[in-house]
Amino acid sequence: MDEKTLYALPVVVFGLLAILFAAWLARDVLRRDRGTTGMQDIAGRIFQGALAYLNRQYRTIAVLSVGVAILMGFLVALFENDHQIARGTITAIAFLAGAVLSGLSGFIGMYVAVRSNVRTAAAAQRSLGEALTVALRGGAVSGFLVIALGLLGVLGVYGVVYGFAEGALPTVAETPFWIVGFAFGASFVALFAQLGGGIYTKAADVGADLVGKVEAGIPEDDPRNPAVIADLVGDNVGDCAGRGADIFESSSAEIIGAMILGVALFRASGGDPNSDDIAWIFFPLVIGAFGLLASLVGLLMVRPGPNPTDPLGELNKGYYVVAALSVVFLFIVCFWMLPYGQIQFALCGVVGILTAIAFVYITQYYTAGTWRPVRTIAEASKTGAATNIIAGIAVGFETTALPALTIGAALLSSYAIGESVDFPNDPGVSGGIFGTAVATMGMLMSAAYILAMDTFGPITDNAGGIVEMSNQPDSVRAITDALDSVGNTTKALTKGYAVGTAALAAFLLFSAFLDEVARFSPEPIDRVVNVADPKVFVGGLIGAMLVFLFSSLAIRAVGRAAGDMIEEVRRQFRADPGIMAGTSIPDYARCVDISVRSALREMILPGVLAVSVPILVGVILRWEAAAGMLMIGTIVGVLLANVLNNGGGAWDNAKKFIESGGLKDDAGNVLGKGTPTHDAAVVGDTVGDPWKDTAGPSLHVLIKLLATITLVLSPLFV
Amino acid sequence: MDEKTLYALPVVVFGLLAILFAAWLARDVLRRDRGTTGMQDIAGRIFQGALAYLNRQYRTIAVLSVGVAILMGFLVALFENDHQIARGTITAIAFLAGAVLSGLSGFIGMYVAVRSNVRTAAAAQRSLGEALTVALRGGAVSGFLVIALGLLGVLGVYGVVYGFAEGALPTVAETPFWIVGFAFGASFVALFAQLGGGIYTKAADVGADLVGKVEAGIPEDDPRNPAVIADLVGDNVGDCAGRGADIFESSSAEIIGAMILGVALFRASGGDPNSDDIAWIFFPLVIGAFGLLASLVGLLMVRPGPNPTDPLGELNKGYYVVAALSVVFLFIVCFWMLPYGQIQFALCGVVGILTAIAFVYITQYYTAGTWRPVRTIAEASKTGAATNIIAGIAVGFETTALPALTIGAALLSSYAIGESVDFPNDPGVSGGIFGTAVATMGMLMSAAYILAMDTFGPITDNAGGIVEMSNQPDSVRAITDALDSVGNTTKALTKGYAVGTAALAAFLLFSAFLDEVARFSPEPIDRVVNVADPKVFVGGLIGAMLVFLFSSLAIRAVGRAAGDMIEEVRRQFRADPGIMAGTSIPDYARCVDISVRSALREMILPGVLAVSVPILVGVILRWEAAAGMLMIGTIVGVLLANVLNNGGGAWDNAKKFIESGGLKDDAGNVLGKGTPTHDAAVVGDTVGDPWKDTAGPSLHVLIKLLATITLVLSPLFV
Repeated sequence: MDEKTLYALPVVVFGLLAILFAAWLARDVLRRDRGTTGMQDIAGRIFQGALAYLNRQYRTIAVLSVGVAILMGFLVALFENDHQIARGTITAIAFLAGAVLSGLSGFIGMYVAVRSNVRTAAAAQRSLGEALTVALRGGAVSGFLVIALGLLGVLGVYGVVYGFAEGALPTVAETPFWIVGFAFGASFVALFAQLGGGIYTKAADVGADLVGKVEAGIPEDDPRNPAVIADLVGDNVGDCAGRGADIFESSSAEIIGAMILGVALFRASGGDPNSDDIAWIFFPLVIGAFGLLASLVGLLMVRPGPNPTDPLGELNKGYYVVAALSVVFLFIVCFWMLPYGQIQFALCGVVGILTAIAFVYITQYYTAGTWRPVRTIAEASKTGAATNIIAGIAVGFETTALPALTIGAALLSSYAIGESVDFPNDPGVSGGIFGTAVATMGMLMSAAYILAMDTFGPITDNAGGIVEMSNQPDSVRAITDALDSVGNTTKALTKGYAVGTAALAAFLLFSAFLDEVARFSPEPIDRVVNVADPKVFVGGLIGAMLVFLFSSLAIRAVGRAAGDMIEEVRRQFRADPGIMAGTSIPDYARCVDISVRSALREMILPGVLAVSVPILVGVILRWEAAAGMLMIGTIVGVLLANVLNNGGGAWDNAKKFIESGGLKDDAGNVLGKGTPTHDAAVVGDTVGDPWKDTAGPSLHVLIKLLATITLVLSPLFV
Repeated sequence: MDEKTLYALPVVVFGLLAILFAAWLARDVLRRDRGTTGMQDIAGRIFQGALAYLNRQYRTIAVLSVGVAILMGFLVALFENDHQIARGTITAIAFLAGAVLSGLSGFIGMYVAVRSNVRTAAAAQRSLGEALTVALRGGAVSGFLVIALGLLGVLGVYGVVYGFAEGALPTVAETPFWIVGFAFGASFVALFAQLGGGIYTKAADVGADLVGKVEAGIPEDDPRNPAVIADLVGDNVGDCAGRGADIFESSSAEIIGAMILGVALFRASGGDPNSDDIAWIFFPLVIGAFGLLASLVGLLMVRPGPNPTDPLGELNKGYYVVAALSVVFLFIVCFWMLPYGQIQFALCGVVGILTAIAFVYITQYYTAGTWRPVRTIAEASKTGAATNIIAGIAVGFETTALPALTIGAALLSSYAIGESVDFPNDPGVSGGIFGTAVATMGMLMSAAYILAMDTFGPITDNAGGIVEMSNQPDSVRAITDALDSVGNTTKALTKGYAVGTAALAAFLLFSAFLDEVARFSPEPIDRVVNVADPKVFVGGLIGAMLVFLFSSLAIRAVGRAAGDMIEEVRRQFRADPGIMAGTSIPDYARCVDISVRSALREMILPGVLAVSVPILVGVILRWEAAAGMLMIGTIVGVLLANVLNNGGGAWDNAKKFIESGGLKDDAGNVLGKGTPTHDAAVVGDTVGDPWKDTAGPSLHVLIKLLATITLVLSPLFV
């Protein structure tokens, strides 16, 4: 067996295992009790709504993707010097492969998730432990599919192009440079999936809240609210399909970028394509495969009793199993595959794992009601909406500090550790960048598990809605409320994790971009991007501006789409007074349809901006400016995503803290629901909605899109 | 006469002329009618309050400054290699000179401003034209003093050190490298003046509004509100003293930075210290002096009739005179002084003048009620505070786009024009950076006039308050209202101008920093700051994070200080019901005192953060990281300052648009004061207060502080 086959083996085996595991989980969940007919009725509406949206969203994305694939293939063929048609065709096909697999994993994961919600609701009639298990397993289908399809997709595209490249390339190990289209395809789908999903979910949520809670005075998830089903659908399309595409993109872009960086070490290690040194190139895939295995074991370890006292603790336990196993696997894979620096690179991976854990804790500190940040927002609500907003913005801005320091520490330490590795055949080469790449791999090893925890969120949220709308007894509600609160935390944590991985992945993709530029440049370049050069500075200025402008468009899109929803809900209330009286059923489908149409309409402008600005900068101001844009856009994007995600989460939990009776006035009276203080907190929560569920998560995707688009189009920029 | 004397001549002559002009303006304003005794009573309270604050603020700043001067002199002496004691001493003395002159110009300007307000109010009894003249002349005292003292200060420090440096330096033309302490002194005072002033003004404003308007239901500037005097004092310490220190810093830092860049061209032109080439080094000072002259002429051209129909148009007319004269002077000075590239560098200066005008228009578009951005916020207020906030944040984020493109175009075009200049003695040298420096000089030529328009703002605002509180007839109020509205516009424009100059100045200061580093580095460095280097990336990440964290602390400081004020106002209302009944006078002085103490207390933490983070980054991660921090911190700072200034301004004017009756519901009814729509707009206005008057303007100062602190401490970083 040659090395390529040997290294491909664990990827194929664990990848297929994960797919089988996902199928088994899906089967396990789907054959469970579907609950009462009332539950099934509501769940059926959510399912129909979700499917209707996904069908139309993916149809739109498919049309856009095919157009972009053809255009991009054509452009790449035009500007690449040596292998014009081949490179253009491969780029277009790889792009479509990435796009299709991203869409597929999103679709199947969502399909199972919107079938799991009613089973979770039904299980909640029996026990917390069972409901927890159903929700987690339902979520895990999406998590494992996403990562497995990413790994197998990259390997597959690599295999096809590798066969093709033999003879055409100086060394066949250079294949990774040819498959960057896959990562761009994944980014492209992720951009629209996250933007569309994010706009959908918050248009429905804000619309439902503003008319339902504020104007009509009915509680959340009340069946009289015509937008309630759209709201429940939205949780799935935003958090499940959107975040799935986000992590699919992180994972596959990181692997391809790290493979490109591996080429330099492959050369430094001798450069014989048939030597052991191909290990450098396959290393990211193998680490990913072992991470999948670790996540699988961790998930199986979550076996709560019927009444776990700390449901979040059960999930955390599984996560720590994943982290510990990942450390073990890291050392095994390093010693098995790498010819030098086994211990050092394994330690870089450990840095990544620690970074992931740090992000989880930092996010928790800033968004959980137990700590100072959320408390100050709740306190500020006493003097009204204005001071609530001022306090929330201050908290949001503050949340940039610890993540920035964490990313900085992770980058510098993994770079320093990697740099300490000696390459005897080529003492001039540095393992520093590869060290940061291994840290990113370490961080992403738990991706499947994290994504399972994330999709757990919308499933439990939906289960709560189904229980509420089908008038279940309080004991059942208590269980879904407990799970919903856990789900809110896991959703927030996943966003923190997604930002952290995006930051590390962007740094390695930036290095990969410089490698690509060096390949295409007619004269040798020295991999230097000098910010003292005005073009780089201006590129950076535009990159930073793009982050703000894109966020502005995303936030405004929610505002406009919510406006459409508000008018429709008001119209239904006016047209049929029976709705408020509870005697007639509102037209849920029409609200779903409005969300669908608004989301698809509103995602176009920010999406087009995100794709066209990097191309314009690269074509007009050339690759140095594109590099500046990429780097500084990443920094600003990471920080602003933190502001938006954590600021929004903090506002949300400040409201929940007040609702739970945690806030008292000077005389010791609880300031709960119905007080002006609570009203002020609701304003903050509403402002935070498009921050944390539309603009923030879309920024993760934008950051990686900047990286993959410049990677793919680098022939145009030199 | 040798060249130095020849070039120093216009600086001394126009500088002294400007000071005499300021004295004449002050005398002209001060001997005018002081109005009724009611007016005088209120004005007296404002004057006392302002003086009390300034005394304590400058005392605090003086203590901090002396401490920093000693510490910095010591550190510089410790780390500089060749001229330890000399460099340390000079740096400390130059720092104190910058600090003292900045403080002095702020103090005198404010003194005249708080004496002009009552004269403006008195003049408003007679005619709009006279009131306009008084307010503009009162504001111009500050404007001309600030710029003249900056120019004379730099020249004076240069002269002292030049004499001293003879024999100690390889070429005496290198003196500019020695006087960077002056710019840091100016930055240091500006940081605390702007932070303290910004916190003071918004603590008083938010506190007065939340208790007065919202809780007690009394109108703005009602004499029954105990915080009303503190609010009026605040307008002066924020806009007048704060912005004065800001522009003093921009102007002197830009001149010193450009002189440093001139040294490279001086060397390229032959390098004989007694040749004509010293012109490169004196050029920035001379351009500044001619700008002062242009501003003086422009100000004299504002001679409104008794009833001008368009008061803003009168001020604009003067501004266009300044701009046109500046263009003429640019060409004259270039042809007089420069040995090469006269036309090219004059064109670079024209680019700067056009940039200044562009910023004025962009700011107007985003913050004036006539255009889309403010209208969308007003529209969004119909559905409540939450949608008002969402729309305002979207507008704020959007306002980064045009300024970023403008700065980018200005930098790239002035660099390209400067690069086209041939230096026959040294063909390897590039005039590109000097081209961007001349663009900055062009932008700053109108600084004195712009600052006069800015200080016009608080004077007319105060005049309005005095008229309101002393119960003048409606005709007088109509005049001060008209002026107040013009003042709001000019205040917003000045902030746009300040951000633009900060961005351009930072780029040239960054280049100057690299020159300084090259001077101190033991081995030659190639002036390259490579963002692909993880240290530079991490430095940039920290710089960007610092901008967010600093803004967070500034916003939170306002929240806390406003909380103190709210408690005091509530306490006074409770303790003496006669206040609300209008039978007893509230204790204004106590509210002033609380603002003073809160502002001084709250400015310390963000101030210390701003000073210590750059030092830590430079010392721990070295000069490359400091360069990354400086560059990326600048980009993010400029954009976030735009978000905060323009977002805040747009919220403010959306409220005013609603109050003016511009917004109607679907049935055509005006949604004015007293409607829930207006209440929602008030929330947005309150949120915008700390954005536009505390955090935003403080960011301008932070950006320049980053540049000057790294310049001064570069010996520690190499």
